[in-house]
Amino acid sequence: MVGDYAHRGFGVTVDAGVALIEFDDTERHNAWSMPRMAKLTALLVELETDEDVRSVVLFSGLDRSFGVGGDFHETVTFTGGDEVDRWIDHVTDLYMAALRLTRPVIASIDNYAIGIGLQLALTADYRIGSSRSIFKMPEFELGIACTFGGYMLEKTVGRAVMQRMVVSCDEWDAARAERDNLLHEVVSADDLRNAALRRAKRAAAFTVAGFRSTKTYLNEEFIAGLERTRVAGKAAHRAAFSAGDARQNMNRILNRGQVPATPAGIVR
Amino acid sequence: MVGDYAHRGFGVTVDAGVALIEFDDTERHNAWSMPRMAKLTALLVELETDEDVRSVVLFSGLDRSFGVGGDFHETVTFTGGDEVDRWIDHVTDLYMAALRLTRPVIASIDNYAIGIGLQLALTADYRIGSSRSIFKMPEFELGIACTFGGYMLEKTVGRAVMQRMVVSCDEWDAARAERDNLLHEVVSADDLRNAALRRAKRAAAFTVAGFRSTKTYLNEEFIAGLERTRVAGKAAHRAAFSAGDARQNMNRILNRGQVPATPAGIVR
Amino acid sequence: MVGDYAHRGFGVTVDAGVALIEFDDTERHNAWSMPRMAKLTALLVELETDEDVRSVVLFSGLDRSFGVGGDFHETVTFTGGDEVDRWIDHVTDLYMAALRLTRPVIASIDNYAIGIGLQLALTADYRIGSSRSIFKMPEFELGIACTFGGYMLEKTVGRAVMQRMVVSCDEWDAARAERDNLLHEVVSADDLRNAALRRAKRAAAFTVAGFRSTKTYLNEEFIAGLERTRVAGKAAHRAAFSAGDARQNMNRILNRGQVPATPAGIVR
Repeated sequence: MVGDYAHRGFGVTVDAGVALIEFDDTERHNAWSMPRMAKLTALLVELETDEDVRSVVLFSGLDRSFGVGGDFHETVTFTGGDEVDRWIDHVTDLYMAALRLTRPVIASIDNYAIGIGLQLALTADYRIGSSRSIFKMPEFELGIACTFGGYMLEKTVGRAVMQRMVVSCDEWDAARAERDNLLHEVVSADDLRNAALRRAKRAAAFTVAGFRSTKTYLNEEFIAGLERTRVAGKAAHRAAFSAGDARQNMNRILNRGQVPATPAGIVR
Repeated sequence: MVGDYAHRGFGVTVDAGVALIEFDDTERHNAWSMPRMAKLTALLVELETDEDVRSVVLFSGLDRSFGVGGDFHETVTFTGGDEVDRWIDHVTDLYMAALRLTRPVIASIDNYAIGIGLQLALTADYRIGSSRSIFKMPEFELGIACTFGGYMLEKTVGRAVMQRMVVSCDEWDAARAERDNLLHEVVSADDLRNAALRRAKRAAAFTVAGFRSTKTYLNEEFIAGLERTRVAGKAAHRAAFSAGDARQNMNRILNRGQVPATPAGIVR
Repeated sequence: MVGDYAHRGFGVTVDAGVALIEFDDTERHNAWSMPRMAKLTALLVELETDEDVRSVVLFSGLDRSFGVGGDFHETVTFTGGDEVDRWIDHVTDLYMAALRLTRPVIASIDNYAIGIGLQLALTADYRIGSSRSIFKMPEFELGIACTFGGYMLEKTVGRAVMQRMVVSCDEWDAARAERDNLLHEVVSADDLRNAALRRAKRAAAFTVAGFRSTKTYLNEEFIAGLERTRVAGKAAHRAAFSAGDARQNMNRILNRGQVPATPAGIVR
């Protein structure tokens, strides 16, 4: 079957085995609220059951960001109680669904991939960025824990690059992201959608049994580590939100009308 | 003792503690059939017992390839039964013997290192390539699983480079291979044999007890992971060979008389 | 509290939450004897209890080396008995204290970081080197085991770079160290102290609860691996010291009055 995914909220099209998921359902920079995370989780779980889907593209959407982190309108209210656990479960469940989707998943990233946005990209099997894409893990300067960012960066690009990103809280441009293996390929913003579709089409031709069994094996350890991170992350984020700094920082950013977690209001 | 290894089939010479194994026993591109894998496994196990051997070079042979993968004349007949398990055991046993050889092992790679050829190189402690060497992990486009390629690349050069190689199925030239740490050193094809012997001679001077105990410790986790890959790999490859795509692809390549798994018949 | 750390032997100052530890207590190249290791271990454990310390800089000291390895005056006497275990415990306990210090730790490295010096740097969260800094893991040519060097390099910069360093025993200059992620940042020797303080000051502003809980989680596996290395390292180093080569090599270096473990007496 090729399911009708229109009701899913994202722009979803399936063509010749390639499912293209376009993040076009919210404001331009695609902050990841809990309802949006749950919606994408459900969609990925559903796609897994569709035998006609042979590869999947996660696409920023035209001129949009892949994701600038969590939705500060939600997290600004956090005080370190059960709401933190609920948030961490949303985050973890989304990454799990992506890692358990036994199709080649191509992330195609325009503009910002920050925090949760970058972490979602790290669950993909292949990452293409536009030449204007920007990557950042600003958790420590935001006043929250960085258990997921740290774990997922170390797993994917190694401990040393992870340390540089989480301690510096700096922005990585596309060239640096490619050099540090956050990206596998850089293309112009105009070509981003097509480059991802070309790669996904090629991957859709892989023998299903060979790819699926391999991905399941190669993601096993990553998934086990994420489950540990779910537990450690809840404790760490509860402690950090209790401190109150994050609330102040998020309020300041919301009041300035900035892109969440983007320094100096720069939007490229 | 310095054993008489002439009966082993490969060109084996031991000089001043350095054992040079030359892959000169079959056609130019050195496909790895099960008998050849068993032969190299037995040789490596035997070298381990020879106290006069203090370092080992695995050499493509003059103008030859390090290995273009398995022997398609064997694998084209696979249908996903016990023959797959037997093949995976040959593959795993070879890598185990290399990882358990407690001497510095230098891989010196000319022309192609594809699939099993590349994986064998990844078991070495040091990898020198000629400037014309080519690296590739084409399993998914060939229609088979990539459990060993995926695991061994992730272990050696990290998850991100692994993803790029196994999803793209592209060729890595020597410069890119050095940048991505598949190679530790690149030399001209003319100098390849000597560069490897120089490195091996230097390593032969290491204090035996210091090197052996260290290598044993540092390879422990790799070996444990390979044992898990043996189990997962059997299931994955059985499933993939059952699908039948691999048989068709391998037949097509054999009928064209191409170097196995090399696109467009290019032989450099 | 801001403790009085003057009695600790190192130059220790605490200013605006940043503790600067200057390795100014011994000869210029800062070999790590057991008493010095114990002294730094105790200092790091004490800093952990000081709530006013929010980040820590480990600084080579003006024109000094970060550390050229163990103190050969000690190790030249080793014969593979209980003294080896005592030495390994000193080494391991120091790294443990650094990894368990739940503050951002910035290593700022001038001149040589060799063996234990390099390993200490690898426990830091962020590494800044001067443009004249030199990195080396020469254990195998020195005739000893490289269990700690191997494990800690593989953990931090990956297996392939680890293999290149421990098998080649070569020197890495600052540019190569940055490319291979041994360093996160390179500055002029004149700016080294200030660059480290700037970074530490910025990190001192991180929300305490967010950083501490995250670092604890991200270092958990590293610490567990180091405990395994403590056990394996004792056996490996006992075996290597028993062989006697190390004693000869260390004696030769001591008699030449060279920087320990530095080839050809070059001191930059």
